[in-house]
Amino acid sequence: MELPVFYAPDIRPDDMRYTMNEDTSKYCIQVLRHENGDQVLLADGRGQKFTAEIADDNRKKCVLKILHTDTIPAREPALRIAISFTKNTSRIEWFLEKAAEIGIHTIIPLVSQRTEKEKIKAERLQNILVSAMLQSQQFYLPVLEAPQSFEQVVNNSKEAQQFIAHCLPEEKKTLQDTMQAGRDTLILIGPEGDFTPEEIKQALSLGFVPVSLGNTRLRTETAGMVAVTLMNAKQ
Amino acid sequence: MELPVFYAPDIRPDDMRYTMNEDTSKYCIQVLRHENGDQVLLADGRGQKFTAEIADDNRKKCVLKILHTDTIPAREPALRIAISFTKNTSRIEWFLEKAAEIGIHTIIPLVSQRTEKEKIKAERLQNILVSAMLQSQQFYLPVLEAPQSFEQVVNNSKEAQQFIAHCLPEEKKTLQDTMQAGRDTLILIGPEGDFTPEEIKQALSLGFVPVSLGNTRLRTETAGMVAVTLMNAKQ
Repeated sequence: MELPVFYAPDIRPDDMRYTMNEDTSKYCIQVLRHENGDQVLLADGRGQKFTAEIADDNRKKCVLKILHTDTIPAREPALRIAISFTKNTSRIEWFLEKAAEIGIHTIIPLVSQRTEKEKIKAERLQNILVSAMLQSQQFYLPVLEAPQSFEQVVNNSKEAQQFIAHCLPEEKKTLQDTMQAGRDTLILIGPEGDFTPEEIKQALSLGFVPVSLGNTRLRTETAGMVAVTLMNAKQ
Repeated sequence: MELPVFYAPDIRPDDMRYTMNEDTSKYCIQVLRHENGDQVLLADGRGQKFTAEIADDNRKKCVLKILHTDTIPAREPALRIAISFTKNTSRIEWFLEKAAEIGIHTIIPLVSQRTEKEKIKAERLQNILVSAMLQSQQFYLPVLEAPQSFEQVVNNSKEAQQFIAHCLPEEKKTLQDTMQAGRDTLILIGPEGDFTPEEIKQALSLGFVPVSLGNTRLRTETAGMVAVTLMNAKQ
């Protein structure tokens, strides 16, 4: 029987006791019906895994006694994706959930020339990432960066491998045949209307390698999810 | 400029003219504002691609003149997935859309011991598959079979490669390291509660190979999508 995992963003590695906030306390005690003596896990989202015992099953401020702490090794290399957010919010929220479940280090909302959505609801998206992290039993919360322009991303990124997935009918190898395991990687996923020829040219001039994600025309959020899956498969 | 693709399930390869049904006519003429002389593509979902010209832009029965017909080669080998449908309908509908976009030959709703959903809305799911086929510019409609019991699937399937993705902590290779390209493949994806040890034992005894889909715990629909992505990456 696996222990349930709760999010404890403000816990410190050497804490001996921890008090859940009101929402988490309510969920743990009222919804999941945990009581004094039950064991649970806490994730700080930064790689610390705490095994704890409920010391006070208060439904507003549940107090836990930390039994022991494990440091989960970070997954190497770091996989990053810069993706143009979709006009349809549910599609990009779905992408965030799936990317976090499958495994991603950083997500950068990419504002390219044809991007139709430039603002994001950071708090709502953070909650989606936290739920997916707990659901998939991971202990590192993916980093959701602030939206960046295409120029910022291609000029400032420093990963060992950099790819751009575009739909122009040019000679492209597949991501799985091009990517090398064990190296920090960044991939750019464009908007529904694709990157502009100028953006693609600029990325290639800066050393980005053009890749294909398969034989079919994929929606933006599907392309993002396929890219995250194929990058993880190289680990 | 790519031509829009419409679904024509009842067209025959040698037809010279074709009349769209009322819904498609309305969408083509009233929504997309096409008129006489415009060229469009028709997909029969069985590999025939028709290039046609609008001869009568009637918004209830749009008539098309077929200019020429191409046969799109079927994607080989055939990739099949038998997946336990989720209690939450939107999650499995999302899986169907993504699987069709990425590319899948057959989807079998799998009824295993812990499956919580045994009935499916076939017509609604068919429409999702058609939309995804057109959206991703493919000309073969994935086959959605009727729900089958776990026993039916493992006993009657005849693919050259057969895999079962389960979460028991046993020695498993990853799907991408185990699967061989160029061979018809079937993979089984279980319910949220996983397959039972008895089901796993039965599948292995019939030659199914246990595989892992990665290092994280995936929801059923995510596991299905990851499996479809990795199988296609082997083509």
